[in-house]
Amino acid sequence: MTTTTATNHSLGPEFTQQVIDSMGPKTPERLREIMTSFIKHIHAFADEVQLTSDEWMVGVNMMNWAGQMSNEKRNEGQLMCDVIGLESLVDDITFTAATRSTNGLTASAILGPFYREDHPIRENGSTISFNTPKDAQVAFMHGRVTDGKTGEPLANAEIDVWQASTNGLYEQQDPDQQDLNLRGKYITDSDGCYSFYLLRPTPYPLPEDGPAAEMLRKMDRHFYRPAHIHLLVRSKGHRQLVTQIFDKDCKYLKNDTVFAVKEELAVEFKPRKGDEKADWDLEYNIALAPSA
Amino acid sequence: MTTTTATNHSLGPEFTQQVIDSMGPKTPERLREIMTSFIKHIHAFADEVQLTSDEWMVGVNMMNWAGQMSNEKRNEGQLMCDVIGLESLVDDITFTAATRSTNGLTASAILGPFYREDHPIRENGSTISFNTPKDAQVAFMHGRVTDGKTGEPLANAEIDVWQASTNGLYEQQDPDQQDLNLRGKYITDSDGCYSFYLLRPTPYPLPEDGPAAEMLRKMDRHFYRPAHIHLLVRSKGHRQLVTQIFDKDCKYLKNDTVFAVKEELAVEFKPRKGDEKADWDLEYNIALAPSA
Repeated sequence: MTTTTATNHSLGPEFTQQVIDSMGPKTPERLREIMTSFIKHIHAFADEVQLTSDEWMVGVNMMNWAGQMSNEKRNEGQLMCDVIGLESLVDDITFTAATRSTNGLTASAILGPFYREDHPIRENGSTISFNTPKDAQVAFMHGRVTDGKTGEPLANAEIDVWQASTNGLYEQQDPDQQDLNLRGKYITDSDGCYSFYLLRPTPYPLPEDGPAAEMLRKMDRHFYRPAHIHLLVRSKGHRQLVTQIFDKDCKYLKNDTVFAVKEELAVEFKPRKGDEKADWDLEYNIALAPSA
Repeated sequence: MTTTTATNHSLGPEFTQQVIDSMGPKTPERLREIMTSFIKHIHAFADEVQLTSDEWMVGVNMMNWAGQMSNEKRNEGQLMCDVIGLESLVDDITFTAATRSTNGLTASAILGPFYREDHPIRENGSTISFNTPKDAQVAFMHGRVTDGKTGEPLANAEIDVWQASTNGLYEQQDPDQQDLNLRGKYITDSDGCYSFYLLRPTPYPLPEDGPAAEMLRKMDRHFYRPAHIHLLVRSKGHRQLVTQIFDKDCKYLKNDTVFAVKEELAVEFKPRKGDEKADWDLEYNIALAPSA
């Protein structure tokens, strides 16, 4: 592909092509495709806005700052992508590509930077909340996991769940929460059913001390994610589902700072009667795509 | 501006516009322009190549890795931009914008990540090489700094010069070189003239242990920069000039790994007679743009 667009710099359109053509013959085809498009768009961006060296260096410094803040508990590079919608976009692309031939499946949403791989398996009907704050409302969440094609219930499916506490912090961000608080893995029974207690989620701001927050400030944007629960669902013979479900009554539903909300992922919490342990009831059924 | 291109993802073109429209009314106009174009191009890139979540995460990890490797002596985020030509492009845009109405000026080139602000002032005719390696060839560099518009010589202009040694390392990368070796600042005399001894430059590879090198490996590219000397020139009432000059006999002149070479920055080293201290002579005159 030859770039033919006129440029506003003295290097001319052949400069971009020269950079693309520097890739050697052993470049894997998929990587060549990705880098060709990336180089083309990054150059077109710089040309379109006539990006200056000083402006570019602001971006480089923010990128380096993101790496310096990132560790096993925090991924600030990911968060910078999130606030410009990139993680939601690639999630949609990946999910759409994976399920183009099937319907009626539970929609995906982004993983986010706070997942941990070591969630303990807990008993159905138990709680993930071990440091329940006074201002929290407890909910009982339950439902069935099915095959999205046949509708059959899926036994032994794994549901990883995680959420922030009412102060907006995940346990790894908060010394006042015990290890693995508000996290757990549940296995569906022979009817494909799962159940657990958790907090009715509350909105919270993104971390305010890094470059992602600095970008939001500069763009005059709010920091809030709508109230949500993270889910990661696995079942043998089915595609892994990463998603989030959102409280439909949350005021940030229409303007999530990381653009992860999809209409079909908004859920309704209903008052729960006759259960001392929970004020709210949430039924949520999950339909998984069979593996390709 | 409304994006009207058809997309290959289920979020549709309005998704990109939604992200752009999230910028609040207090966003500075220049930042709004830059972020609008950046978001548009990054989304278009992801859509064009149907970037998957896993592929995107490879990029996030490399970005974070770059930040983690960067410190006051090394800027790996900058280097990642360099190997895809971005620093050269923004340098050209900045230089072109700065001098659109003038001609006959010395061309700019990128600063690179190895500049230091604390170069000592040295006497004209002195050397910047204090640990001259056995395999080095010494050159005498001299010339005049003039006003690019009037041709008048500029007295008291400052020329910062820095270069790598023959092992390819700048002094801050190399424990065997003394502090500030191969660096210095020279002040032009009343005739606008400067002179110093330095090494005839040699090609060297970029650092091979970071994400920029990893990108080059994946793209099946070589790591070499052509032999060059860095210059930063300042004179009161004139625009600062950042440039590099390149040995025209170097085999990497046509395929610089950071795309910084411009034809007019290639220079010829001539044999130097009657000087025990140098084998080569380089005359280099510099014409600066008056301040706007």
